[in-house]
Formats: sequence, C-alpha cells, structure tokens
Amino acid sequence: MSGAVLHIVGMGPGDPELITLKAARVLADCEVVAHFAKRGRPGHARSAAAAHLPGGVRELRLDYPYTTEVAVDDPSYLDGLAVFYDDAATRIAGELALGRRVVLLCEGDPFFYGSAMYVHDRLARDYTTVIVPGVTGMSGCWTRAGLPMVHGDDVLSVLPGTLDEPTLAARLAATDAAVVMKLGRNLAKVRAALASAGRLKHAMYVERGTMAGERIIALDDKDDDAAPYFSLILVPGRRRRR
Amino acid sequence: MSGAVLHIVGMGPGDPELITLKAARVLADCEVVAHFAKRGRPGHARSAAAAHLPGGVRELRLDYPYTTEVAVDDPSYLDGLAVFYDDAATRIAGELALGRRVVLLCEGDPFFYGSAMYVHDRLARDYTTVIVPGVTGMSGCWTRAGLPMVHGDDVLSVLPGTLDEPTLAARLAATDAAVVMKLGRNLAKVRAALASAGRLKHAMYVERGTMAGERIIALDDKDDDAAPYFSLILVPGRRRRR
Repeated sequence: MSGAVLHIVGMGPGDPELITLKAARVLADCEVVAHFAKRGRPGHARSAAAAHLPGGVRELRLDYPYTTEVAVDDPSYLDGLAVFYDDAATRIAGELALGRRVVLLCEGDPFFYGSAMYVHDRLARDYTTVIVPGVTGMSGCWTRAGLPMVHGDDVLSVLPGTLDEPTLAARLAATDAAVVMKLGRNLAKVRAALASAGRLKHAMYVERGTMAGERIIALDDKDDDAAPYFSLILVPGRRRRR
Repeated sequence: MSGAVLHIVGMGPGDPELITLKAARVLADCEVVAHFAKRGRPGHARSAAAAHLPGGVRELRLDYPYTTEVAVDDPSYLDGLAVFYDDAATRIAGELALGRRVVLLCEGDPFFYGSAMYVHDRLARDYTTVIVPGVTGMSGCWTRAGLPMVHGDDVLSVLPGTLDEPTLAARLAATDAAVVMKLGRNLAKVRAALASAGRLKHAMYVERGTMAGERIIALDDKDDDAAPYFSLILVPGRRRRR
C-alpha cells in the first residue's frame, strides 16, 4: 500500500497555464483523478488538468447533489452536502485502500473556500495527504482587471456574498480593500450593501476571470443582477503612490 | 520597439516548483530580468527563476535603499522608497525603450502587497504591461501548516502587522479567519492584540513557508518575539464539518 497518497491539487483560477509546475508533475504521476462536477459538467479544474494526465487514468467524477441552486440557509442543503462529502470520501478511500495515487482536483487554492477541504477533513487522519496550493480565483480576477488590490498597510476583507446585507455593508465600510465571493443570487443584495457603504463606485464585477467568456465591468455599469456563483466583486484599497 | 513588453511575474511563496507554467514560459523568453534585493541579497523570487532564465539574460538588480529596518511611520522611509521606485522604473523603462522583453520578478502575487505594484503604477500607462498572478505567500503557509483556512461563509481578514494594537485587536475579534502579514518588529504587538481578542490559542506562526528553514509553530509555543519581515500568523476560521 506504500503508493497510496491523496494529493489535493489547487488548479488555479481557470487559465490552464496558471497551474503550478508541482501541480503538473503530480497530475502526470497519478493513477486516479477525482473531481467535482455540477449538473454533470466537469468544472475548469478538470479542463486545466486534461493536458497533464497520463493515458488510462481512472476517473472519479463527484457529482454535486443539487441541480438547481438550493439556498445555503436551507437545512436540507447542508444535510445533503454532508452526505455527498461522506460518499466522495468513501469512494476516494476505496481507491487509496488499493494503494493508488489519487489526485483530487480543486479550483483555485484548496484551503481557501475549496470543496476539497471537506474531503480532506474526512481522510487526512487515515491517509497520507499532500496539498498543492494554487493561484486563487481572486488573484486571477484582480490581475485580469488590472487592479493592484492592496498596498502598504491596507486591510483586505474577503466576504462571502451569502452574508446578510447589514453585515456586508458594515464590513465593506470598515475595510480598505474587499473581495466579495459567491455572488450568484446574492448580487442585488451585495450591490445594495456596497451602495450603503459608499463603495459602489469603486466596485468591479468579474465573471469567468482568466477564462473564455471572461467579463470585467464596473458594477455600476452592469444593468442586471444575474451572476454565476463563481463571479466576484473587487474593491481595491487605497492607492499610495510612492 | 514591438518587442518591448514588461511582464510582472508572481513567483509564488518560495518553493521553486510553485511557480506557474505561464511564469516559466515568460521567464524562458525574456531578455532582461529585474528583481528586488535586500542588503544586496536576491530574494527567493530570483532563486526560483534561476532554472528558467535563458543564457545571457541581462540582469537589473534593484537594491532596496535600507540596510537596517527603518520604521514605516518614519517620513524618511516613504520618501526614500519613492525615490527608489522612481529609479527602478527609470531603469526598467530604459530597457523597454530599447525594445527589450523585461520580466520584473515579484514574490507571491504581484497585486497583493507586491513591491512591483509601485513600478507598475509608474510604467503601465506608457508600456505594454502583462501581469502573471502567482500563489500568495499566505497560501503557501497555510498549506504547509495543514490549516484549511476558510469554509462556507467564513470571513477572512488580511491584516498588516504594522497596524496599531487596538486596531489589530478589534479586527481580530470581529473576523472568522485572519492572516497577519509583515510581522518583523511587530510580533510582540501582534501577540498582545491576539491575546486581547481571544484568538491567541488558535494562532499559528509560519516562517519561511515552503522554503528551506521553514518553521511552523503555535504562536503560544514560540518563546521569543523575533520574526523576519516575511513571516506571518494564521488564525483559521470556523470549521463547519459537513
């Protein structure tokens, strides 16, 4: 069983060239590739991996249980996800028990809001687990938007768009720079919070950053509140031009 | 002059294998490599680049003006840095004016507290500038510390250790997860702020993360307040084990 290792690999923001040399090496040497899929569609992590995987690699597709967006404050959402992650961990453990080198792909960076953390939490005590960090989605987005985000002693707040509007507004008012993640159905609320915090005019909206179909627009110029879950908003910090 | 491009390349947290495929490609194709150096010593970005640079590359070493640590609230510090960045930009512009492909190396990710932003701010209007995002130092550190940092709707605050103690304490008390950057001479103050915020017992100290000489220790177990400037402290968010 000495070959059994679980690698959890950060696959970066989307552009396949933004994976690390280490990620490419680990992918080329794996026997099983596991990845999350929404509505039966592999995400960009699986696409970015394609060029590096060896022929004949075994594939474990981990299909998220929701085909429509269930509100995250619905208890059935968390219960359903817990069952899903239990099952994903069991399937991966089955491969590890056979002594195989397994790679679990993760969009962005694994320990930064990654789904793979829930698998890690279930398996890291029992199996050798190696994490490969990746370029975060937010780094990819602020790079493409041409926005130097934080200088000097700027504070950066990373805020899930799932927070309630008063909390978002208070945090946006109290920070230098902000990234608002997980927009999806939360965009109208996030827009209102930015307005009441006086930060709307500096907010940039980025969708599919570094990927085909990329869209970068001042939020104030975006006429609707439709947003994919993995779009985000960037509010740069103070520019100290020294 | 059509070849003149300034690439500002994120070189990741230190491990040379944690640069991106894009960074490696851009390095292999450059004519001039510029990099910051402290006390005459090139940093880890230059070391990580070494294996990828073409033979005969021109080298611009940009020596920081301070050989001892000057307090950042000393006006002479900012004035000295402004002159330094003006000079760095002028030297790089001189290479670009000759039509050369220049790479400016940056530790971590360029738009995330990177010195290279000050050069970017001076040159981006006049020259074609391409940014290559990188794995941040904090991602490298939380990966090596085995700390999943943020789950679900956790808020992450990135706090420079240069902030005053009451500000640090208030922000640490009000966030789920925190990264405190730029420790250096600020560690005793940061430790006191963590204690008054009730966060000391979950704080990990990471020095030279992903590099030779790496040190990872619970802050509470660290007996002294000596810390290099690029060490940092990690306070993970709530673990929602679902």
